[in-house]
Amino acid sequence: MKCDIAIVGAGPAGLTAAIYGARAGMSVKLIEMGVPGGQLVNTDWIENYPGFPEGLSGPELMQNFTLQATGFPEVELLMGHVHKIEPIKEGFVVTYGDQSLLARTVIIAAGANPKELGVPGEKLLTGAGVSYCAVCDGAFFREKTVAVVGGGDTALEDAVFLTKFARKVYLIHRRGEFRGAKILQDRVFANEKIEPLLNRTITEIQGKGKVENLVLKDVESGQTSDLAVDGVFILVGTRPNSDWIQGFGIETDAAGYVAGGTDMETEVPGIFVAGDVRKKTLRQVSTAVGDGAMAAMSAVRYLEENQ
Amino acid sequence: MKCDIAIVGAGPAGLTAAIYGARAGMSVKLIEMGVPGGQLVNTDWIENYPGFPEGLSGPELMQNFTLQATGFPEVELLMGHVHKIEPIKEGFVVTYGDQSLLARTVIIAAGANPKELGVPGEKLLTGAGVSYCAVCDGAFFREKTVAVVGGGDTALEDAVFLTKFARKVYLIHRRGEFRGAKILQDRVFANEKIEPLLNRTITEIQGKGKVENLVLKDVESGQTSDLAVDGVFILVGTRPNSDWIQGFGIETDAAGYVAGGTDMETEVPGIFVAGDVRKKTLRQVSTAVGDGAMAAMSAVRYLEENQ
Repeated sequence: MKCDIAIVGAGPAGLTAAIYGARAGMSVKLIEMGVPGGQLVNTDWIENYPGFPEGLSGPELMQNFTLQATGFPEVELLMGHVHKIEPIKEGFVVTYGDQSLLARTVIIAAGANPKELGVPGEKLLTGAGVSYCAVCDGAFFREKTVAVVGGGDTALEDAVFLTKFARKVYLIHRRGEFRGAKILQDRVFANEKIEPLLNRTITEIQGKGKVENLVLKDVESGQTSDLAVDGVFILVGTRPNSDWIQGFGIETDAAGYVAGGTDMETEVPGIFVAGDVRKKTLRQVSTAVGDGAMAAMSAVRYLEENQ
Repeated sequence: MKCDIAIVGAGPAGLTAAIYGARAGMSVKLIEMGVPGGQLVNTDWIENYPGFPEGLSGPELMQNFTLQATGFPEVELLMGHVHKIEPIKEGFVVTYGDQSLLARTVIIAAGANPKELGVPGEKLLTGAGVSYCAVCDGAFFREKTVAVVGGGDTALEDAVFLTKFARKVYLIHRRGEFRGAKILQDRVFANEKIEPLLNRTITEIQGKGKVENLVLKDVESGQTSDLAVDGVFILVGTRPNSDWIQGFGIETDAAGYVAGGTDMETEVPGIFVAGDVRKKTLRQVSTAVGDGAMAAMSAVRYLEENQ
């Protein structure tokens, strides 16, 4: 099987790249290891993707994206986990599951996933008070009490960010001090709405139908206690889906993200990157869509220039 | 009047920035000199903005964006032409029309406008057969003969659009092949009402009180010829709305575009740029939306760091 553009990952970035690739008359194979839509499939409600004043559910938005991309005869959706890309003279051999295809260009849009705590109640109450994204969900917690879990830059920044909405923000971290930048720590300590709870871990998230209580454990004494909250933001890092990226010339940073230029090009000519897997500062549907359009048009340009 | 973020221009980038700014709890003034929606207000049909599998009209999409942005109590839409930004200690004095406001940060999302050919007769006959907007004026040419000038996506799309009204559409392009998307080229070549005239430029637009004739020049032979038409649509690209950007430290490139970093920051701390006015390679609603979200979150971070 041959194609002009193979896209690894059918989230917002990959689906947008497929739309743009197809409209440029290119044959596109979109390879997804799970359900098309990426993290959005597990997102209850989106209010910040422009075009939908009333908001809509993540699955509905992603169904729209998927229908739009797969509506082009040029686009074929394939299921499988990409685990190898091999550069050859004609392009790249992309291996997914036990199959492979020959692509003249590749767009890496494999996404990222938030790291989970792995505690009881977490999965069950995701979207019902458990969130992994303050920018996405902060506005749902006006005048409420929330907890943030984490000690890095994102946790500190988002704790401050959440004070714009929440009445009270507990900032829970398993160590005795935060890891994030000093300037962010200063802001956290200066903010009267934030109460740091250091040397604490969460052992359970409780609630009937929505988050109501956190069970905390004091790391030093081992004692547990209850903390009543309306929501908990788990900001202990994200993990890009990039374990498979090795051996074909693309470097990832320490966290596993792929660097791309302003036109989404990587160090390997013919390979482009888009969306959450890219090294960048804001991971949103809006920015994924911009990345996807740009990556596709860069691939199209590359194809035109290397016929 | 004071605000956290002043946004110059209420097109796709500016409206998205307003949504993100408001959701971060910032007060936003959105200053627009015409109708909110930017160039999209003059766009018949959009098929490549992800989320709308059936496509929708430009005005409808922009109404959605505008409703979404102005639905936030934090966002106020102001009418006026921004002609001055003056940095002061507290931020920036933004002057629009004969009014001004004090903004702690500014996002330049002023967009771009159609380019003119600059040939004799063009200015005189604008509105009398010379048009820069097929959607606005197409219906005036039912059963008439028109020409479209240009070779990019817009020219190709609008040539097809105009066949809904016109009896005959000449598509004049100075080069030997079109630059627009393959799918659009296919549509153009399949349309019997469209006659491509390649390697031709227009040297004069003639007519008494209304367009009657185009003088064409063959780029290869240098020979001129007459082409009788009732109207001409000039769709040769856009010029950024950046004439007013001077005297406050921001440089534009030769074409007038404003350079922004990956986080949309300009050379002036506190001023950000987004959308078509930014120096970049792809100007689409999809990329404007990504720019707008990023610019807003960079402004929010700047506000948090400079309290």
